[in-house]
Amino acid sequence: PRHQGMAKNTNLRWRLPLVCLLWQLAMIVLFGVFVRFGAEADAHWEEEKREMNLTSDIENDFYFRYPSFQDVHVMIFVGFGFLMTFLKRYGFGAVGFNFLLAAFGIQWALLMQGWFHSFKDGKILIGVENLINADFCVGSVCIAFGAILGKTSPIQLLVMTLFQVTLFSVNEYILLNLLHVKDAGGSMTIHTFGAYFGLTVTRVLYRPNLEQSKDKQGSVYHSDLFAMIGTLYLWMYWPSFNSAISDHGDAQHRSAINTYCSLAACVLTTMAFSSMLQKKGKLDMVHIQNATLAGGVAVGTSAEMMLTPYGSLIVGAISGVVSTVGYVYFTPFLESRLHIQDTCGIHNLHAMPGLIGGIVGAITAAAATEDVYGKEGFIKAFDFTGVYQTRTPSIQGGFQAAGIVVSLLMAFAGGAIVGEPEGSTERGEHGEGRVEPACSWNSGIHVPEDEESDVYHMHNPDKPASP
Amino acid sequence: PRHQGMAKNTNLRWRLPLVCLLWQLAMIVLFGVFVRFGAEADAHWEEEKREMNLTSDIENDFYFRYPSFQDVHVMIFVGFGFLMTFLKRYGFGAVGFNFLLAAFGIQWALLMQGWFHSFKDGKILIGVENLINADFCVGSVCIAFGAILGKTSPIQLLVMTLFQVTLFSVNEYILLNLLHVKDAGGSMTIHTFGAYFGLTVTRVLYRPNLEQSKDKQGSVYHSDLFAMIGTLYLWMYWPSFNSAISDHGDAQHRSAINTYCSLAACVLTTMAFSSMLQKKGKLDMVHIQNATLAGGVAVGTSAEMMLTPYGSLIVGAISGVVSTVGYVYFTPFLESRLHIQDTCGIHNLHAMPGLIGGIVGAITAAAATEDVYGKEGFIKAFDFTGVYQTRTPSIQGGFQAAGIVVSLLMAFAGGAIVGEPEGSTERGEHGEGRVEPACSWNSGIHVPEDEESDVYHMHNPDKPASP
Amino acid sequence: PRHQGMAKNTNLRWRLPLVCLLWQLAMIVLFGVFVRFGAEADAHWEEEKREMNLTSDIENDFYFRYPSFQDVHVMIFVGFGFLMTFLKRYGFGAVGFNFLLAAFGIQWALLMQGWFHSFKDGKILIGVENLINADFCVGSVCIAFGAILGKTSPIQLLVMTLFQVTLFSVNEYILLNLLHVKDAGGSMTIHTFGAYFGLTVTRVLYRPNLEQSKDKQGSVYHSDLFAMIGTLYLWMYWPSFNSAISDHGDAQHRSAINTYCSLAACVLTTMAFSSMLQKKGKLDMVHIQNATLAGGVAVGTSAEMMLTPYGSLIVGAISGVVSTVGYVYFTPFLESRLHIQDTCGIHNLHAMPGLIGGIVGAITAAAATEDVYGKEGFIKAFDFTGVYQTRTPSIQGGFQAAGIVVSLLMAFAGGAIVGEPEGSTERGEHGEGRVEPACSWNSGIHVPEDEESDVYHMHNPDKPASP
Repeated sequence: PRHQGMAKNTNLRWRLPLVCLLWQLAMIVLFGVFVRFGAEADAHWEEEKREMNLTSDIENDFYFRYPSFQDVHVMIFVGFGFLMTFLKRYGFGAVGFNFLLAAFGIQWALLMQGWFHSFKDGKILIGVENLINADFCVGSVCIAFGAILGKTSPIQLLVMTLFQVTLFSVNEYILLNLLHVKDAGGSMTIHTFGAYFGLTVTRVLYRPNLEQSKDKQGSVYHSDLFAMIGTLYLWMYWPSFNSAISDHGDAQHRSAINTYCSLAACVLTTMAFSSMLQKKGKLDMVHIQNATLAGGVAVGTSAEMMLTPYGSLIVGAISGVVSTVGYVYFTPFLESRLHIQDTCGIHNLHAMPGLIGGIVGAITAAAATEDVYGKEGFIKAFDFTGVYQTRTPSIQGGFQAAGIVVSLLMAFAGGAIVGEPEGSTERGEHGEGRVEPACSWNSGIHVPEDEESDVYHMHNPDKPASP
Repeated sequence: PRHQGMAKNTNLRWRLPLVCLLWQLAMIVLFGVFVRFGAEADAHWEEEKREMNLTSDIENDFYFRYPSFQDVHVMIFVGFGFLMTFLKRYGFGAVGFNFLLAAFGIQWALLMQGWFHSFKDGKILIGVENLINADFCVGSVCIAFGAILGKTSPIQLLVMTLFQVTLFSVNEYILLNLLHVKDAGGSMTIHTFGAYFGLTVTRVLYRPNLEQSKDKQGSVYHSDLFAMIGTLYLWMYWPSFNSAISDHGDAQHRSAINTYCSLAACVLTTMAFSSMLQKKGKLDMVHIQNATLAGGVAVGTSAEMMLTPYGSLIVGAISGVVSTVGYVYFTPFLESRLHIQDTCGIHNLHAMPGLIGGIVGAITAAAATEDVYGKEGFIKAFDFTGVYQTRTPSIQGGFQAAGIVVSLLMAFAGGAIVGEPEGSTERGEHGEGRVEPACSWNSGIHVPEDEESDVYHMHNPDKPASP
Repeated sequence: PRHQGMAKNTNLRWRLPLVCLLWQLAMIVLFGVFVRFGAEADAHWEEEKREMNLTSDIENDFYFRYPSFQDVHVMIFVGFGFLMTFLKRYGFGAVGFNFLLAAFGIQWALLMQGWFHSFKDGKILIGVENLINADFCVGSVCIAFGAILGKTSPIQLLVMTLFQVTLFSVNEYILLNLLHVKDAGGSMTIHTFGAYFGLTVTRVLYRPNLEQSKDKQGSVYHSDLFAMIGTLYLWMYWPSFNSAISDHGDAQHRSAINTYCSLAACVLTTMAFSSMLQKKGKLDMVHIQNATLAGGVAVGTSAEMMLTPYGSLIVGAISGVVSTVGYVYFTPFLESRLHIQDTCGIHNLHAMPGLIGGIVGAITAAAATEDVYGKEGFIKAFDFTGVYQTRTPSIQGGFQAAGIVVSLLMAFAGGAIVGEPEGSTERGEHGEGRVEPACSWNSGIHVPEDEESDVYHMHNPDKPASP
């Protein structure tokens, strides 16, 4: 593939730089026109503080959210990046392109989300919460990337990022503002949307001849340890992820505790089912690397609610089972029957647990009572103020459920739109279907000769050993 | 060992899942009966805030402790996990089983410690401090794991975790509540207890024929770099470890500074003695990976006291020397004479520095004066209120010393109890003594053929090179 | 080199331990005489709190800065350490000696910076801000280390650290106190000074015969993934670096946002120019690992000012271009024409972006108006109080520019002084010029036979593959 790819590479030589530079130029212009510091990051803060009647600098939102922001930041860049290094010949590509798409996406996310949520007098006013939300938005792209890992060129990836960030922001606006849905940890907006978006794209980009390269695929011992770095950072910092944009005080505190509990339970059921479903009762590294995280996804919506620690354990335990079973049975089925090649198994890690998260959120909201939350806590937890003053828990539950459906529809529609033109463009260019784009991706990064990346990965119980 | 292990694996196939699932079920039931959110994580917080007369959400304990909690969390899962990846063929097992036992242990620790310390009107009320304490408790199991690395099956490991967490909580209760001892960084409760517990277990599980497999042991270049990830995260975050549950304000601040100083000094004396005691004056990777951390252990009790920065330097410098000398002289001695096979050398990293930490804590407490601490600071630092109002520094020093002895006795007794039945069960099952359990452990995780894990490791000055 | 080096190693056997132990002893004595806890870490805090009229423990500086401190700590030890593991045979040496020099340097930095900035009634009073500043100071040594990686013995490295920390503190005092310059993220004090110091040292230590060993140099696939750990942690935590010692409140908040924006833009232009300047349009791993970080350096001075998000994008975009172009064209030029062997390319990552950072800082300061900052914010941002009450923005801009020149001169002078005697000593000892010191360095750490470290690295487009 290396030599065949040269003609295309000449092409890439100009396309990637052009896209990056033009995009960056556009960002500078748009930021120049629209983006300014929010009140808490502006040098006028001293005056603002008096107006807001704050007695101390510690009341600045920075101190409520910055530690969580940094944890989320690590999850996006190290967590998602290294989680995808499990492929024997693809580690650097996974980390490198994840880095590129995330840096590309966060700028656009600051604008898109800013127009929807932080727009005031013609300016987008940003603070640390906007940085977290931009990271969240890009997180959904990293998830989708997991489905198409090894199948697209960097350019296609950037185009996908552009579309997905846009659509993410629209979907998020519909859910949070129009449906008045709660989703602080993004079970619906980030995981369900991101995963089904990616799965739709990979379905459109289906390449039957991918099977052939299977002999080159697989993981090696050290790439599995690198992947564990990704896994552990995602697992450890998930309580920060789910609590990062919750209300100050008890809500952030509660989100962290619920997520901690859910994740712990998820590890045990993942190990149990991994051992049970494997020949010889061994634990499968792929499950340990991925399914252990499902518990964080599955409480994304409900963690800030009064899910309670034992509720979290139940949700985490179930999601670990569903995710592990998914890796063993659903992933092969999706590929053979539905022609969905899900490289990293995001259907098991994000899609199904995301749906569980949405449903658990709807149920938890519907079951809320003033007794459990306290009169003030009840109103604060669901923002039942203003036009939503009369909304009841059961109605809220209904809207939460509607949020799942909307996210799904947006993901299918968006994925289909993005995937198709990409596919056809590349097909037109290279004649041979969608095999080549993967090669152009391979050669998109300069690696030593024997390190050519594999174009496709599937869980393979007989992983070949490293030399 | 792979083929011989198959019969047992069939067994394992059902035992590991059953243990995990039943355990998780029990946790769900017990959490359902006992565990609820503490006041600062409950939705009633708004009302609570008024009652506690707090003016801002930032006064929620979450903001005092959550960043430290996350650092501790990283130490337990990445720090301890990766520190043990130095073995050539055992990296994934170390990280994976550390992950399993920690996720298993924190749930039980939340309950055990909750019954002792956070029990109110029939419920355990949890907040971020409970999460830190659960991580601490599990940390002591990770330490013990270091002594028996490669010698037990996953099941045995879980049984050990169950026992050790229980005993840890009892010991902690005796020290903190009955003896009214200070030990915020856990020199006694975590390190001394955890290390001697593990050393006792490994003594009971002594396998003379382990020597034979030495040709397969050793580290490789990359596994040493992975281990350095563990080392550095433990080293960097140790100030958070020792300050995580100290009193708000100056105590947390002081703990972090003392630990920072102690660790810096420890690196220099470790390097000095490593070079001095090695043929050719080279530095030994094992010392750099482990002994540099002794400074954190050795100020675990006294860091929150007025140890002063130069006091910390002295303690750190001494502990680096003791730990390095331990790796060179004590570890071989322990194995050949006392039949204690200490895979990771926890005697040098946790046991001896833990004892130093306990002693330094006792001395620092005994030397406390109202002049140094201030009248209020003195009472606050040692909680000399209520029934302890009349306790003097020298009496406190005596109780601190008693805490060391109690921790040691509990560790010896507990380790002997846990180790023996385990050993005999396995012996009865497999006939051939305790060699097999290690094999079942080996095959407990699914790895490529050439990656079979080694059952045993000792510091080997002639580490074989990687292919 | 291994066998030839033995005589020297015998020497090293006593020199390294002696230097480390004597140094540590000196630190203990000096800390004993000078260093005490600052008010916020002292047990008298309760009384202090009343005097300072603080209502809550959360007002302790610990809670404003500790999370940022830990991020900076990770950057120094994991970030810089792992960034330098890209060399095939040098990973452990890079991490290990970075660890040694940093632990050595922070103690001396606490003293030097303490005498200049925290000296009161004969004592240095330390708190979390001192720890951050000590890490910053050592950061400049880590930068210089990058230029001479593989060319010096551990002893030489420690001597360099001693000199550089001293000079850093003097330079910092001149800039911050005498010139009253703002430089919270250290574009001038850390990056410009550190980089030109290191480049001067490597110029003095120039070894023409280094070229010969080129066949052994290069990176391997896994070492590049390890280096990416360093890159990503530096990249993610740079917002904490630039905001760590800014004023409480809006200044810290603003610094983080500006740095986040600058770094995002820098990634895109780095990728664009890396692909454009490379044969075949591929991305170069060296650029991704290094040039993507230039954006953080280039806003080090101005991040806490009202640079605005779009201003940050512009600065970040430019610095990515400059840095990448530097790797492609300047590094070979520096070596062939100026005999500056810059192992890690710090000229591109720290020197040029540092200069940009100083200039951007001067311009941003000169352009400041009361309108943009608010009346109070303007005074607070530049500390225009006391004797500086009458300083105008344009005068401030002039002083900022003077700060760049001073930093450069100090770096050149210091580097020349430190480099020369080192070189001559070693030359005198070993006869063969400066080749040997590198060997003594090689053998300074105990590694398996086939892992001998390479003495020199240059970007090599035909990196040999690993076996």
